[in-house]
Amino acid sequence: MINNGIFITVEGPEGAGKTTIAQRIVENLKREGYQAMYTREPGGISISEQIRQILLNSQNTAMDGRTEALLYAAARRQHLVEKVIPALEAGTIVVCDRFIDSSLAYQGYARGLGVEEVYKINEFAVDDAMPHLTLYFDISPEIGLRRIQQNKGREVNRLDLETLDFHQRVRKGYWQLLDQFPERMVKINAEQPIESVFQDSWKTVLKFLLNR
Amino acid sequence: MINNGIFITVEGPEGAGKTTIAQRIVENLKREGYQAMYTREPGGISISEQIRQILLNSQNTAMDGRTEALLYAAARRQHLVEKVIPALEAGTIVVCDRFIDSSLAYQGYARGLGVEEVYKINEFAVDDAMPHLTLYFDISPEIGLRRIQQNKGREVNRLDLETLDFHQRVRKGYWQLLDQFPERMVKINAEQPIESVFQDSWKTVLKFLLNR
Repeated sequence: MINNGIFITVEGPEGAGKTTIAQRIVENLKREGYQAMYTREPGGISISEQIRQILLNSQNTAMDGRTEALLYAAARRQHLVEKVIPALEAGTIVVCDRFIDSSLAYQGYARGLGVEEVYKINEFAVDDAMPHLTLYFDISPEIGLRRIQQNKGREVNRLDLETLDFHQRVRKGYWQLLDQFPERMVKINAEQPIESVFQDSWKTVLKFLLNR
Repeated sequence: MINNGIFITVEGPEGAGKTTIAQRIVENLKREGYQAMYTREPGGISISEQIRQILLNSQNTAMDGRTEALLYAAARRQHLVEKVIPALEAGTIVVCDRFIDSSLAYQGYARGLGVEEVYKINEFAVDDAMPHLTLYFDISPEIGLRRIQQNKGREVNRLDLETLDFHQRVRKGYWQLLDQFPERMVKINAEQPIESVFQDSWKTVLKFLLNR
């Protein structure tokens, strides 16, 4: 039933153009006559929003890394069950902005909890709803951070303030995932001008749809 | 460092006498000169309490079973890190009222999420802080439920209202865990008069302490 639709995720660091491009892909798909939806956790799902409030509460400084990873997985599960899966069952192409690979790259690899360990709890959360296609936007942290600084309309978030070294570890984490999941992950060169990044992404999506 | 102390958990259905006996064991240990502490999740730990509020919020009827299991594991992790582990490191005997086996028996076995599946996320939550000794209070659901009804001072909770069939599955779940973890789990016959249940429990704890 989940395979009535197509589940696409977009991944990569901040400043890579993920959100803009994911939204344009959805617009293009609709224009082509596909049923398509953009979403991003917690995505207006009440239980996931409540969990996010705990994660974002600045009073919660004592939060352990494993508690954090479990809470992200819980919010992911509920957003998936209430929003993504019903859309897939109805035949929609769902484009989700960050999903399991963000937890693996950021918490598993860059923060050192272990990719395999974090995969275990996310496997439990995702169950049989793994993405069919994942676009990974590859960009050096220096270029990504410069883009964020130039983008005045966008709020600076907690991840932007991490060290350059942290962002380099995140990139290495994503590279490891590309090796681990070659059947669903495609690397997009996000250092190109944004229009070229979009064209590469759109071609990858179209090719995937036509080969199914 | 965790092995400076001793981590004891008490498990079993409602109405088995777990809480009363756990608290009496702690009192007795203190009288014998041991440093001892009784606790029960969320145990006054702010982040765990916030997670429990989501679990107990009667508005959250859409909550998926896996989301629930992940939230219990997250609350468990934080209570462990902030309360149990520091006490163990200080050489305390910690007696915890329900722990990993409750999730395995109730969610994994009785609710059908799968013991192995629920074990994975709890293994992540508990990491290397598994209980040294677990007292499992074995009692038929009929006798347990009768005790609860007779105990006017105690509030009836959500679990008490489950069907008899559910409570029978919980018991079978615990039996499976006894087979799986014979090195740490001891079955206590909780159908005896409460004083005998206490004496059996106390002897088991003393024997464990003396053989270490």
